[in-house]
Parts: sequence; structure tokens; C-alpha cells
Amino acid sequence: MDSKNSFVDEDLLKRVPRWSKYLEAKLGFRNHWYPVKLSSEIGEDQLATATVLGEEIILKRIDGKVKAIRDRCLHRGVRFSEKPECYTKNTITCWYHGFTYKWDDGKLCDILAAPDSKAINRKSVKSYPVEEAKGLIFVFVGDEGFDVPPLREDVPPTFLDDDMCVGNAIYPVDSNWRIGAENGFDGLHVYIHRTSSLVGDTQRSLPIGHLSDVAKVVLYEEPGNPKGVDDIFENHISVWEGKVEGQTVVHGVKRQTNKPSRTTATSIWLPGVLRVDNFPDQGLTHFEWYVPVSEDKHLYVCNIGKRVSTEEEEKAFQHEFWNRWKPISFENFNAQDIIARKALQHYYKNDQAWIDEMLIEGDAPAIQWRELAHRHARGIQKPENL
Amino acid sequence: MDSKNSFVDEDLLKRVPRWSKYLEAKLGFRNHWYPVKLSSEIGEDQLATATVLGEEIILKRIDGKVKAIRDRCLHRGVRFSEKPECYTKNTITCWYHGFTYKWDDGKLCDILAAPDSKAINRKSVKSYPVEEAKGLIFVFVGDEGFDVPPLREDVPPTFLDDDMCVGNAIYPVDSNWRIGAENGFDGLHVYIHRTSSLVGDTQRSLPIGHLSDVAKVVLYEEPGNPKGVDDIFENHISVWEGKVEGQTVVHGVKRQTNKPSRTTATSIWLPGVLRVDNFPDQGLTHFEWYVPVSEDKHLYVCNIGKRVSTEEEEKAFQHEFWNRWKPISFENFNAQDIIARKALQHYYKNDQAWIDEMLIEGDAPAIQWRELAHRHARGIQKPENL
Amino acid sequence: MDSKNSFVDEDLLKRVPRWSKYLEAKLGFRNHWYPVKLSSEIGEDQLATATVLGEEIILKRIDGKVKAIRDRCLHRGVRFSEKPECYTKNTITCWYHGFTYKWDDGKLCDILAAPDSKAINRKSVKSYPVEEAKGLIFVFVGDEGFDVPPLREDVPPTFLDDDMCVGNAIYPVDSNWRIGAENGFDGLHVYIHRTSSLVGDTQRSLPIGHLSDVAKVVLYEEPGNPKGVDDIFENHISVWEGKVEGQTVVHGVKRQTNKPSRTTATSIWLPGVLRVDNFPDQGLTHFEWYVPVSEDKHLYVCNIGKRVSTEEEEKAFQHEFWNRWKPISFENFNAQDIIARKALQHYYKNDQAWIDEMLIEGDAPAIQWRELAHRHARGIQKPENL
Repeated sequence: MDSKNSFVDEDLLKRVPRWSKYLEAKLGFRNHWYPVKLSSEIGEDQLATATVLGEEIILKRIDGKVKAIRDRCLHRGVRFSEKPECYTKNTITCWYHGFTYKWDDGKLCDILAAPDSKAINRKSVKSYPVEEAKGLIFVFVGDEGFDVPPLREDVPPTFLDDDMCVGNAIYPVDSNWRIGAENGFDGLHVYIHRTSSLVGDTQRSLPIGHLSDVAKVVLYEEPGNPKGVDDIFENHISVWEGKVEGQTVVHGVKRQTNKPSRTTATSIWLPGVLRVDNFPDQGLTHFEWYVPVSEDKHLYVCNIGKRVSTEEEEKAFQHEFWNRWKPISFENFNAQDIIARKALQHYYKNDQAWIDEMLIEGDAPAIQWRELAHRHARGIQKPENL
Repeated sequence: MDSKNSFVDEDLLKRVPRWSKYLEAKLGFRNHWYPVKLSSEIGEDQLATATVLGEEIILKRIDGKVKAIRDRCLHRGVRFSEKPECYTKNTITCWYHGFTYKWDDGKLCDILAAPDSKAINRKSVKSYPVEEAKGLIFVFVGDEGFDVPPLREDVPPTFLDDDMCVGNAIYPVDSNWRIGAENGFDGLHVYIHRTSSLVGDTQRSLPIGHLSDVAKVVLYEEPGNPKGVDDIFENHISVWEGKVEGQTVVHGVKRQTNKPSRTTATSIWLPGVLRVDNFPDQGLTHFEWYVPVSEDKHLYVCNIGKRVSTEEEEKAFQHEFWNRWKPISFENFNAQDIIARKALQHYYKNDQAWIDEMLIEGDAPAIQWRELAHRHARGIQKPENL
Repeated sequence: MDSKNSFVDEDLLKRVPRWSKYLEAKLGFRNHWYPVKLSSEIGEDQLATATVLGEEIILKRIDGKVKAIRDRCLHRGVRFSEKPECYTKNTITCWYHGFTYKWDDGKLCDILAAPDSKAINRKSVKSYPVEEAKGLIFVFVGDEGFDVPPLREDVPPTFLDDDMCVGNAIYPVDSNWRIGAENGFDGLHVYIHRTSSLVGDTQRSLPIGHLSDVAKVVLYEEPGNPKGVDDIFENHISVWEGKVEGQTVVHGVKRQTNKPSRTTATSIWLPGVLRVDNFPDQGLTHFEWYVPVSEDKHLYVCNIGKRVSTEEEEKAFQHEFWNRWKPISFENFNAQDIIARKALQHYYKNDQAWIDEMLIEGDAPAIQWRELAHRHARGIQKPENL
């Protein structure tokens, strides 16, 4: 890292003035909320670690609330998690010299090997605001003094609705987070899903391509609300037959049925989260986050939501989630996306690729996303923060 | 890669003005022909992949002729070979969005997920001229618009002769290609071969060193013909005894025999191919290519040729090749060279080594080779082509 | 390496003007003596290899004396040790072309494959002065023409005393050498040792922290003598209880005994060697070297010394060393230090960490050490020497 100011060469950034901040955000955007764990992964009094935007953090649930601080002692930089020492409920002690910090605010409150040090009560390890919602633990990766916005500004509309019942899973993926985001939002990549078991299981229609009318893409840029790009499928021309040299060689699946059988829209929101309406089936909503971990890794946080009005409906949905949607949607349909992202990473790991790529008309929504992110991201992760 | 213009530091290049292009050619020389596969490795309708000068390519044999294009979709850069889709004989389709290219010229002829894109028929993936000769598949790694010279300009004289029957094998080696070239052309390195089983098997003579008379090295630099350096052994002083502190400690093998029992010359040719006359035995010719793959890998393409005039002679030579020369020459004698190259790579992987090395009189032919390559190579592989 | 002048970014070096040479010495200080092998590891006529300050060397014992030269042929840079050829007692021959060097001074005395080369008797491979003392083989890693100081200037006082009987062992550690040095000299890190079996085994006292009075640290900077920093424990305030939020949570071990039961001082000396007085037990002295191997590896050379006056005492100590101190002190107590160093390396591998760390009052001796090393080191290892 040393004295570099950016993860990406400045000459390349100048080539894309309308989305240079997106190109620069190889490790993500600062001052945003990111989900890093399932709620079920951290029980009362339990510790967990995560890496987000390249920052190693350690988390603990205390009296039901999850706390998060940087997993790095101020003194000599070792990780608390190498050998955690928790002598009181509200503190964590570094195994190396006994530097002890409050979980609440990261304040250095004691040093066991040096109880009279002037550093005590004057220094603090970075602490991260935490919110928990819909079975996910979100942390805010922010600059010092940055005014923390409410979680609702950083999630897709409807996700936090009271009647939205959600099933979750997290998968680590070996690609940059932007690769995940662009693969997910890409209306053309449905081509790879024609072989998924989900198509037969749901008896739904699935074309082999969507041609977006970029003029009809809807941008959400209102202050105080989530910022996103919504690509509504009724504005699309769907492609049902793939032809090579004039001959049809690949077919989409078009059902003759009375039931509405199509996904209706895909929207992408800062800091990198997708919403797919009426997917994997009518009346369900799929959400997926691409949480930056390192230059070549992201957490793929998948969620399926359904509106419920009774406890029975909620139970029924949870049963359906575990027995049907998790295996067939996340681990069959979305697993195809994971394979694609690894393949893309081979190319895009070279920053020059973002200049050399040859996008086409159907990629216009992706460009809208890059530019929106450039305009509204609250900050860029920099080497100096690692 | 980003915005670098060279694989090698410019300050070092300035130190060797007479062969700076050779030092710079860490990934080889552009606009030359390179063998990448045995003909037998690609049957009709079969696909294969190779990496040459750092460029990943995919090959297919169609109606007997091998075609080669870059193994990278123009759109999002994924490799076709990750999951090849070949719907028609003349095309390959990218698994990601159905971008379809002609094998002949690389033209983008269809996009299955976006059949109306303006990119169709306007863009082409890089295609590589291919020639097949003597059981090898050669590709031309060239700049756009570069006038492709005939294969015969890039192989050693006699290799393509009609009566030359050739046996081939390819071995991957973990060293830079120039290490391979200089090890092969080095008249002194015969020292390592004194222990090879080939010496006993052929009952030939093998000194422990050759002292080249550099004034008598022959340079081939005529326009339109192969460019090379020929080191003729009758101009050498051979060393038969190795002495340490005045005492003989190592002996070469000098036969008393009527049969001519010596290799007669070693010559090296652009873009990096050696010819050894009357080796591994009288009347045979050994050829070997050092094909750049990456900074620290090359393909070692080995060939033994014999002039034949009847089908029986050809069959007899093929039998001899598989039963004698491949095991005893390639896989015993030349295997010693592979070990040496890996050992050299440990030093020469640091570009500074090319400045620090301490060459002696017997290395003069190697310098002739570096300078000839500098004068006549048709281009240098650059980071921007990867 | 290429044309870099330093292993560390110059902007960072400017940030610590009083110890910039220490920060720059990522691969150690040149023109100093370093132990690289136990005497017992190289028998008569035996070869051994070692890497010190990034330089690969090869050693041989001849008529009882150990010789050392660079393990890299002048000609093409291959390592002699890949396939050593030793035709005479006083020479080593390179397996590649028969370049033969004298062990005494590294002079190129013969070339088997080129006996008439002018290079013979004019060139020399780098040779390293060697001294053997107290069961260790020391080499001097020096600049050409540098006047070699006596070994006694580069070891802690008392180590070479005639009546000092020493037991040794060497452990490779995956951290930079400076991490080893600072962990060893750190008076606070005793916190990690409270769980070591050594405490019970010796029935000694062990506090959980030492607060050094930096004004009383003693600096040794006299010309011609070892340069070091001595931190005497009677000037310390010892910490026996560790408190968190006012409650005692960790205890040191304080014995009620007539026998003196405390370590009395820790001193650190150039080029990176610690002495611990009255450790692991009263009347014993512990020495430990941190020998730079690469940016992220060092040799941890451990010694325990005892003054003896008879052969029986010596035998008794050797027995005690193997049966008690090696397992319980090196391989239990010091093994805790090795774990800590690996943990520190994760942070300090980034050079910026040396700027970002947050040292406290008790770390003042470490700063004294950095500054003393900056003032008195005889040179810095540079990329150009590798």
C-alpha cells in the first residue's frame, strides 16, 4: 500500500470521467451500510469476524445487540481474533499486551500490562455502527465524523417493509464486487440461465435475452432516499429464439398459461444491491448484495422475500424457502451467476479491461448504474484506510 | 499491466543498446510464426487452447484446416473455452450472452441474446493465421494489418524440405523462452550432457566444451529468408579433458571409429528456434522451438528430422523415433536442458540479471544471436496486447 | 528488483528521520556478523546452504574450518547447490559449465568447458568471512573492501566469555527480523508468557507487565565495542495484577521465596541480538538472534549460556539444556513469541504500519533501539546486492 492514493491507475480513471469513481471503487464505496453476517450466525455473547471493504472487523452480540470494532489493536496492529480475551461483557482485551477496548465505542479503557499509560481513555479503535434487519447484520463502513444515514437509504425499497418475510444465505465469491453487480443487473445474461432447473420447477417463461429500452430506465436520485436504477421488463423486447447464421439453435421457454409467469423488473441500488421483482416466482422478491471483501472477493448475500400477513403464512414461507427456493434458486440458478463472475474476473482483474470491454445496446442500464454510483456514492475506499 | 509500455524497466534497456529489443522481448517477438500444438492434438471438429506470447487462443479443425481466434469474447472478455458452444461448423458462440464469431476471420456474426445489435458484422475478435507443416500447427501472432510473411521465413532452412520426415513432441518448461534459446545455442553447456545415456547409446564422441571462434560464426540476414546465426563446429576447438588445479577430473568421450561421430553445427533462428546438424546421430537433424507462453513459461517444441525417399524409410524412421530418439534424446538428453533452464530462471527472472551476468569468450555466439534478434525481429510483445 | 534503490518507499523514510535506516533495513544491516548454522550442522567435508539478508550462500567445512561463498555462479547465475561438484578439497565446480572456484577466497581458478578463458584467475565470486564460536557459525555479510571488525563487536557482552557454556537451537520464523527483535526486547509482552509452563517449572516470579523508566535505560555506544540498549529491570515498576473496568481479571505470579526469582535485565545489540540476564533461571543467560532471511522470514537463533568451571559442570549443563531448557524454554516459552511474531507480521508487512502503530510509554526502549541501530549500523542491505 505504502503511499498510493488509489487502488486504480489515474490515467485509466481519466478515461471514464462520467463513472471514474465507480472504476476507482475497486474495494467499494465508503460511508454506506453493508450486510456482513446472517443474524443467526452470531448468538448472544458470541464473537464473529468479517472483512468488508478490505477492513477486518470483529463482532459480538451483547444483550441482544451486535457490536462491531476493527479487528486490529491500536498498539501493534495484531488481530484480537487471533486469541480473543473477553474478561467482561462490555470489553475485549488484546492477547498481546492486554489493551482493552469497549465494544460500544471502541474506547481504550484499560491496558493490563501498563495500567498507568496516558493512552487509556484517550484513544479508540474504530467502531462500526451496526443495524440488524430482516435476518441480516449490517455494518456502516464510514469516515470519522461522517453523519450516519439511516439503513433505509442503503437498501432497495420494500426490503424493510413490515410484512416482508425474508429467507437469507451468504456465499463467498472469488470476483470483484462490481463484477457481481453488473452480472446481476445485466438483462442479457439470462442467456446462461436457460438450463437452470428453476425454469422447469416454476413452470415460468424465460426468454434468452432482454433488450432494454434505455430511455425508459427509471433513475431514483431523490435526496434522503435509496439511489438506484430500475429496469422495467415491460419496456423490454424479449428474445425467445437464438439464431446462428439464420438458423434457430437455442430456444427460450415461453409458457401458455393463465398465471403471470414473468419476472417484471430488475433494479440496482447503492452501495451494490439488486432487487428482482416477481422472482424466483410470482409474488416473491429476490434481493442480492455484492459486499466488497478484497480486490478479488465479495460476499454474495442472497435473500428471497414474501409479503405475509399471518404467522402461518410466515411459517409456510420459511418452510418453502429452505426446501424449495434455497436449493433451486440460490444454489442452482444463482450458482450459474457465480460461475460467470469467476470467468469475468479473469478479464476484469486487469483494470485496463474496464476501458477495453465492448459493451452493446443492451448494456446501457449497466452504464446508467455506473454513472449513478459515480454521482451518489458517499465516498471511495482508499488504500490509506487499510 | 495498466498503463505500462514495456515489460522491462527502461533504465535497463538503455544499458544494452545493441540488443535492447531482445531484453525487452520478455514475452517474445510479435509478427512471427510459432508452433503451438502437434497436428495430432487437434482432430477434425476438435477444439484446443494454447497460450502464446501471453495471448490465450482457441483453435478448431474445420474440414481439415485449423483455425485460431483469441479465446476472449469482445463483449465482457470471458473465455469461450470455459464452456464452448459450437452450434454450426463455422462459428463459436460465447456461453455468456451468445456472441457468435466466425472461425475464418473472427467476425461477430450473431448475438443470440441481442439479435438486433449494431455490433453484429461490424466487430471481429482477433484471428490468427494458421499454417500446418511437418506435424506442427503454427500460428502467426501479428499486429493488425501486418503483412504476413510465409512460414518458411520463420523456420530453420531444411525444416520444410519435402523429403524431411519429422518426429515431434512438446514439453512445457518453467522458464522464460530466452533462457531456453540461450541454453540450447550455448556451445559450452555440452558439459552437462556428458552423463546422458545418449552418449553410450549412439557410440558417438562428445567433448566437454566447445570453444567457438566467433569470427567464423555465420550470420544469415538476407531479406525474405530466415534470419539466424550458424555456429559451425569445425571452427571450434573441442575440449576433451576438464582440469581442476592442474589435475584432470572430468573426461569427454572421444571414440576411435570410422563413422563420423560428431554433431557438426548449431544454428539459431528467429523467432527462437534451434537447428542441430547431425544430432542426435549422423544423418539426423534436431530442431527445437522455445515458444513464449508467459514471463516464466515456454513451450519446448522438439523435432527430429530425417531425409527419406520411400514410404518404408519413413515408417522405419517413425518407428525409430518413438522407440529410440524420443526416449533417449528428448527425454534423457534434452531433459538435462530442462533442468538447467529452471535453474537459470531463478537468476534471470530478475531483469537486472541480464546486465549482471558474466559472459565469457565461448558465449560470443549468444551475443551474436541477441544482436541479430534485435536487428531483425518484426516487433516486440507489449503489455497492451494482453 | 530492477533499478530500485531501497526496499522501502522514500516518503515513509522521511517520516522517521531519527530511525529511517532502521525502517529501510527491511532485509537487515550490511557489514555485520550473523549466525547462520549450528556448528554441528556442518561436519568435515560437508556442504550446507543458508540465506542471509536475502543472499544465498553455500558453506563447506575444510580441515575443520568453515568456508562460505555466494551460491551463485558468476557466469550465468545458477546455484552451485543445485548439483554440487567438488573435485578437489579446496574447490567447488559449477555443474553447468564447469566454472571452478576456490573456497578460500572465491577466486575463479578453472573453467572445465573453457580452460583458456581470460576470466580465469581474474574474477571471484563473493566470499564471506566465517567465524565459529560457542557452537554457532557466523558469517560476515559485507561490502567489498569493508574492513571486517572482530566478531566480539557484534555479539552481546559475555557471550564469548571462556567460561560461558552454551546450548543452541535454530528455528525459522515467518516474520520480518525487526518484528522478532522488537517482540523480544519489549518489556510489556511478558503478558503473553503468563501461561507458559516455564513459570511453574522454575517456580520463579513473572509479572504481567514491566513499566520501563526510559531515562534509566543504558546505551552502549563506545567505538570498538558492541552497540546496544540495556533495560535493567530494577528500574522497572512491575505490574502484578491486570484490571478491566476496575476488577482484577489477570494475575502475574509472585513467589514468596528466598531464592532470587526474577529476570534482571534485557538488552538488545546490533545487528539484532538479545540478551536476557538470569533467564530462564537464576544464573543462566538467554541469547537470541533474529537473522534476516527475506522480507518475511528470519532465523531465530536461540542460546542459553551458563558459566562453568569444570568438565562435569559443562556436561551437567548440556544434559540440563537438552532435557529441560530446550523443551521448556525454547519450545514452550519462546514458542509463544513465535506465534506473536507471525501475528505482528500480518500488520507490519505493510511498511506504512511502522508509521501508523501507536506505541506507548513502555515502548520507549524499543524506540531507543531503533535510534541506536540507525546511528551505528554499518550499512543497509539494498536491492542491488540481491
